[in-house]
Amino acid sequence: PMDAFVTVAEMKEEARKKLPKMVYDYYASGSNDQSTLAENENAFTRIKLVPRSLVNVSKVSTKTKIYGQDLSTPIMIAPWAMQRMAHPNGELDTLEAAKEFGTIMTLSSLSTTSVEDVSKHSNGNPGWFQLYVFKDRKVSEDLVKRVEKLGYKALVVTVDTPFLGKRDADYKNQFKLPNGLFLKNFEHLLLSNLEGGLNQYMATMIDPGLTWKDLEWLRSITTLPVLVKGVMCPQDAAEALKHGADGIIVSNHGGRQLDTSPSTIEVLPAISKVVQGKIPLILDGGIRRGTDILKALAFGANAVLIGRPVIWGLSCGGKDGVLRVLNLLNSELQLSMAFTGMNSIHEITENIIWDQNKYIKL
Amino acid sequence: PMDAFVTVAEMKEEARKKLPKMVYDYYASGSNDQSTLAENENAFTRIKLVPRSLVNVSKVSTKTKIYGQDLSTPIMIAPWAMQRMAHPNGELDTLEAAKEFGTIMTLSSLSTTSVEDVSKHSNGNPGWFQLYVFKDRKVSEDLVKRVEKLGYKALVVTVDTPFLGKRDADYKNQFKLPNGLFLKNFEHLLLSNLEGGLNQYMATMIDPGLTWKDLEWLRSITTLPVLVKGVMCPQDAAEALKHGADGIIVSNHGGRQLDTSPSTIEVLPAISKVVQGKIPLILDGGIRRGTDILKALAFGANAVLIGRPVIWGLSCGGKDGVLRVLNLLNSELQLSMAFTGMNSIHEITENIIWDQNKYIKL
Amino acid sequence: PMDAFVTVAEMKEEARKKLPKMVYDYYASGSNDQSTLAENENAFTRIKLVPRSLVNVSKVSTKTKIYGQDLSTPIMIAPWAMQRMAHPNGELDTLEAAKEFGTIMTLSSLSTTSVEDVSKHSNGNPGWFQLYVFKDRKVSEDLVKRVEKLGYKALVVTVDTPFLGKRDADYKNQFKLPNGLFLKNFEHLLLSNLEGGLNQYMATMIDPGLTWKDLEWLRSITTLPVLVKGVMCPQDAAEALKHGADGIIVSNHGGRQLDTSPSTIEVLPAISKVVQGKIPLILDGGIRRGTDILKALAFGANAVLIGRPVIWGLSCGGKDGVLRVLNLLNSELQLSMAFTGMNSIHEITENIIWDQNKYIKL
Amino acid sequence: PMDAFVTVAEMKEEARKKLPKMVYDYYASGSNDQSTLAENENAFTRIKLVPRSLVNVSKVSTKTKIYGQDLSTPIMIAPWAMQRMAHPNGELDTLEAAKEFGTIMTLSSLSTTSVEDVSKHSNGNPGWFQLYVFKDRKVSEDLVKRVEKLGYKALVVTVDTPFLGKRDADYKNQFKLPNGLFLKNFEHLLLSNLEGGLNQYMATMIDPGLTWKDLEWLRSITTLPVLVKGVMCPQDAAEALKHGADGIIVSNHGGRQLDTSPSTIEVLPAISKVVQGKIPLILDGGIRRGTDILKALAFGANAVLIGRPVIWGLSCGGKDGVLRVLNLLNSELQLSMAFTGMNSIHEITENIIWDQNKYIKL
Ligand SMILES: Cc1cc2nc3c(=O)[nH]c(=O)nc-3n(C[C@H](O)[C@H](O)[C@H](O)COP(=O)(O)O)c2cc1C
Ligand SMILES: Cc1cc2nc3c(=O)[nH]c(=O)nc-3n(C[C@H](O)[C@H](O)[C@H](O)COP(=O)(O)O)c2cc1C
Ligand SMILES: Cc1cc2nc3c(=O)[nH]c(=O)nc-3n(C[C@H](O)[C@H](O)[C@H](O)COP(=O)(O)O)c2cc1C
Ligand SMILES: Cc1cc2nc3c(=O)[nH]c(=O)nc-3n(C[C@H](O)[C@H](O)[C@H](O)COP(=O)(O)O)c2cc1C
Repeated sequence: PMDAFVTVAEMKEEARKKLPKMVYDYYASGSNDQSTLAENENAFTRIKLVPRSLVNVSKVSTKTKIYGQDLSTPIMIAPWAMQRMAHPNGELDTLEAAKEFGTIMTLSSLSTTSVEDVSKHSNGNPGWFQLYVFKDRKVSEDLVKRVEKLGYKALVVTVDTPFLGKRDADYKNQFKLPNGLFLKNFEHLLLSNLEGGLNQYMATMIDPGLTWKDLEWLRSITTLPVLVKGVMCPQDAAEALKHGADGIIVSNHGGRQLDTSPSTIEVLPAISKVVQGKIPLILDGGIRRGTDILKALAFGANAVLIGRPVIWGLSCGGKDGVLRVLNLLNSELQLSMAFTGMNSIHEITENIIWDQNKYIKL
Repeated sequence: PMDAFVTVAEMKEEARKKLPKMVYDYYASGSNDQSTLAENENAFTRIKLVPRSLVNVSKVSTKTKIYGQDLSTPIMIAPWAMQRMAHPNGELDTLEAAKEFGTIMTLSSLSTTSVEDVSKHSNGNPGWFQLYVFKDRKVSEDLVKRVEKLGYKALVVTVDTPFLGKRDADYKNQFKLPNGLFLKNFEHLLLSNLEGGLNQYMATMIDPGLTWKDLEWLRSITTLPVLVKGVMCPQDAAEALKHGADGIIVSNHGGRQLDTSPSTIEVLPAISKVVQGKIPLILDGGIRRGTDILKALAFGANAVLIGRPVIWGLSCGGKDGVLRVLNLLNSELQLSMAFTGMNSIHEITENIIWDQNKYIKL
Repeated sequence: PMDAFVTVAEMKEEARKKLPKMVYDYYASGSNDQSTLAENENAFTRIKLVPRSLVNVSKVSTKTKIYGQDLSTPIMIAPWAMQRMAHPNGELDTLEAAKEFGTIMTLSSLSTTSVEDVSKHSNGNPGWFQLYVFKDRKVSEDLVKRVEKLGYKALVVTVDTPFLGKRDADYKNQFKLPNGLFLKNFEHLLLSNLEGGLNQYMATMIDPGLTWKDLEWLRSITTLPVLVKGVMCPQDAAEALKHGADGIIVSNHGGRQLDTSPSTIEVLPAISKVVQGKIPLILDGGIRRGTDILKALAFGANAVLIGRPVIWGLSCGGKDGVLRVLNLLNSELQLSMAFTGMNSIHEITENIIWDQNKYIKL
Repeated sequence: PMDAFVTVAEMKEEARKKLPKMVYDYYASGSNDQSTLAENENAFTRIKLVPRSLVNVSKVSTKTKIYGQDLSTPIMIAPWAMQRMAHPNGELDTLEAAKEFGTIMTLSSLSTTSVEDVSKHSNGNPGWFQLYVFKDRKVSEDLVKRVEKLGYKALVVTVDTPFLGKRDADYKNQFKLPNGLFLKNFEHLLLSNLEGGLNQYMATMIDPGLTWKDLEWLRSITTLPVLVKGVMCPQDAAEALKHGADGIIVSNHGGRQLDTSPSTIEVLPAISKVVQGKIPLILDGGIRRGTDILKALAFGANAVLIGRPVIWGLSCGGKDGVLRVLNLLNSELQLSMAFTGMNSIHEITENIIWDQNKYIKL
């Protein structure tokens, strides 16, 4: 039945029907007027790709590698919180789909399944882990040790959330975790059930005093690669390099933090110029079609993360839904590679982007 | 119950339901096709802010100072006429809210509460007073003397209203003051009840012959700081400086005067270049979100005025409604400061604006 | 009752209700997809005016002169065909309104009242006459002689109509003159009742072989000023000057001829540069507000013509309706002059236009 | 009754009503979000034409020549598949209309009438033939020999379809050929009834390994002119010239292949600069009005192909419908030529395009 979905958009529509309004709104919303949320998608549409003809494209491959790990696709799964609201199996189903498809899931700190259960379910290769650094550094340090031991392969530290963005819908709905669900990684702490709401929780726990120095501290307490998630500014990319980041994720948190910040694809070229291929560069935000991914790769990304498409997939059909999303997007990517004459991921460059200014402006 | 409002937009919607159409239209309308009214808001949305990461933002403060007075926020209250149409307590409630929040209200010449009553209610610190200069200079001079004695802290002389703009809705509705309300500052004059309508009133009273020389006259009859409100042109900012203005308010009267004039935020940078920080520079028009305020400050404003948001607040809940508006906007401002790595108002510069042209144009 | 109309747009809406669909469509339509029709209006909205402050504007006057004739306003009336479809008094009512208001009506060749009757009604000063040059030059020459003798003050020769534009609605409606109405200037010719439809008529009569040489011929057979109407290209303006035109009317025939031609206001600056004030320069197309007129004057026009606004005025209320339109637009013009600090028509220059590029681009 | 249709858009609307949804969707759709489909049309609208006045346009002619053949019009008919779904007479009616009008039809490889039947019906001058090169080169070589012998005048080899684009609607509808219809040119092959759907068919048959070398091979096995259809990139135009193409067709397959590729008219100028008139240059995509054609010619095309307009024409009225479409578009072209002062096709240059940047930017 998942085959009946032909686009990510249809799965979003189906999820909207299935999920309680409070949950759907939490997943779908951006902050304030949601203009960055919209721009993330619209900016992709404005970028034009140049079709190429009569290149042999009988063997287009989307395979790639990251930190030495083979992937079937440059599409990875973004960390997103509280997946059991979308489907009873939550994080476990997402993980199974990711592994079956040959890609990586990033588990959110705010998961409704514990890092231990996810790891167990994965036979020791659970993918990446996303970290929020708490005021109580001990809590974070413990968590880092736990995930390192549990076989997680990289740490994604999110740096765009000193506070939670103002998502109007969540305030209207007085969003909180449904009964029976818990932030499983923090059951030993008092607030795992989000009683005061998510904003309250984040304000109490998360440290808005974090600086680039703390990245060095984090770097020092783990052997895992550390990626910085939430970079939107070329100068911050330079800071990340300077302070030892092993990877950069260009992200505006899916338009959920600072509204009227630029779309991620718009800032990517400038950041890519700073990074110069020294460490992996990843983009997320607004990816809904294979061509979006191709454009991100063309502007310098090594891979992309997808957030909401996975949410809709999981909501529609659990593991099968997530697989369907990965299949749809990867097939679209492959087809668009063929149309631009690209046979492999590493061949892709900015040359496939149509630069109006080189020719004529209509 | 005011907590139920999460955005200024919702309070506008509620006000629309509560107020008589004639009153709502008077408050909401711009002139002619209302394109400047719309642009005031839209121009803000087009400006993009650069998120910054890993700056210590645990102590973001919105405190600032103007003419030596401490403010808890750079958000002040614009002069707007006839507040008792919105709420029985009118100007007095707006004043209480402003003072409680730690900011300044500017009382309109065309208030439905007299300068004396407002002053009395304020225990002698009623904030600022907005002046329309009348043909009969004696009337204006008297008023200036009255307000100076009553403890008002600054004079805001409005220079964009030699005539009232053509607000089509008011003509359609044949707008006039509801029974029982009066222009309380001019009860000794005949026309305080606006019998011939507001346009008639203004045409009879206001002096369209005012020039920059008159600013010097005004400067000479008072010791209060004199701000010029309604500057939209860099050359006029230079004139204001030359003729002794103590402050400049970039304003197009909320899109109510010359339709198809630019948005205020669009002209701010050029005017800021002229003013060069010599005197306070304030902007109003179209501010509906905290990010709008941050952008105004980034382009050189020291503070902003808000008009309609206060109108909707007062209409929805009197003093509490106005407080809610101030709270919403100031929290949004504070959050957006955190996201751009700004800890205090005076740190804010144009660097936080994303300049597409520096990087790539999509 | 005409006072109830506050904008031209409302009068259009009323006319739409009153007129038979075939007639309304004929008046309202542009050619093909009507994109030039829309652009004529939209381009005005995109142009921004700079408000000026503290200029003495107590004596703003819209008075002007053309070919030695005093006008109360720079707004004149465009030639438009078959006015008796809009109102029984047709051209005579339009004329009365124009004269009463102190401006000039241009009578169309395709009028439903004869040049003689119009002249008689006017006591010998009927205004201007618009000429289509027919294949049979004798017919045109006769007409020129007739109108010269009848007291018309200028000849407007329309050069954008070698063929009629394709107005889809007229084809759909199989537009023709309603029973009882005739092209009164050509009753001696067979086709005065448009039996084959207007396209047929024009194709049979009008000469698509006309060239700039013919302008010299026309110039030679009359002592009246000859204006060329329908110039949209700087090179053609140069031709007009070279071949002896006494005036140029920038016009795309109200978007009724070549669809996707530029708006008239967009081409005006380039044409104005060619004309350099040597002969009167007039613009028509899309004028619906006083600010539109101010912009045309700022970019170099000496006066404007209005077409559809007059049509709606006449349809709504005959002479009174046309007067109302003239009043509305002229008051709006006067007010916008005050807001930009202009006291008279000849003071107006391009300085009142906001040039984004000089300052900042949002 | 075909005369009742005044625009191509109306015929589209009528076809939408007449055809089964599966068929209509197949004809109307573009790939993915259909943004290129829309852009093909919208880009034309954004281009402005400069009206010229007082040029003798009494003898405007649309006649032209291609490969020595006289045409009454620069409008030719694009290859489109499976015409019998639109009308029982399918390809034969389209052919009759083309010939009667004095232009050329390009028969699709995927026709529901065989190349033999089409040729017979045409008395030996069936026009052009469009070729998909199959994995089994023998099949293609045979087909080339067949059509050469049957009197086809040129070969159009389509190079933008290594795979079929992802047209979401066809997946939703599970599009396949209606019962009783067959791909008549491949009846000797097993899959002529598209049982597995069109995507399946193309994936099995078409060779995605084709390169520019294969163009030389094709060039070597036929004496017919070989045109390359689907060029969207200046470098590919250079390749085409280098490898012996006799003509280039700028096309994005009507927005059915790579979504978010540029519109065809947008890339034309850059490609025209490469071709420099050495071989015929043709454009298709989004042509719905005569002005679109004029713009393509102005930017360097020698002729255009129309796809969907013919589909709607055939669906509405068979041969008469196609004739009506040709008539409408050609009359519109002729009229727009008159308005821009062009008397013949070869006079048309980029001078008739309004270049905003030369003058003023609004
Ligand atoms: C419902 C939801 C929850 C999210 N939770 C987290 C999270 O816990 N940690 C984090 O770093 N990012 C989180 N994100 C951001 C995503 O990792 C990612 O940046 C974003 O979803 C990408 O944009 P997209 O949804 O348009 O693909 C969340 C996003 C959504 C939509
Ligand atoms: C209903 C209303 C009444 C106003 N009355 C006055 C006034 O009496 N004096 C004045 O200087 N400005 C007046 N203004 C303009 C405001 O001071 C201010 O410039 C404008 O409202 C700012 O735009 P905003 O409403 O988008 O915030 C008024 C505005 C409104 C909406
Ligand atoms: C219904 C109608 C009839 C017209 N008839 C004529 C005409 O007979 N002669 C002529 O030169 N222009 C004619 N025009 C064009 C007008 O003179 C003028 O250029 C145009 O209406 C200006 O645009 P506007 O309608 O947007 O003001 C006509 C326009 C309309 C709308
Ligand atoms: C329904 C349909 C079928 C088509 N089939 C073919 C085909 O078999 N071969 C081919 O080269 N192009 C094919 N095309 C593309 C057309 O030749 C042409 O490039 C396109 O239709 C031009 O765009 P337009 O439809 O906007 O005029 C097809 C297009 C459509 C809409």
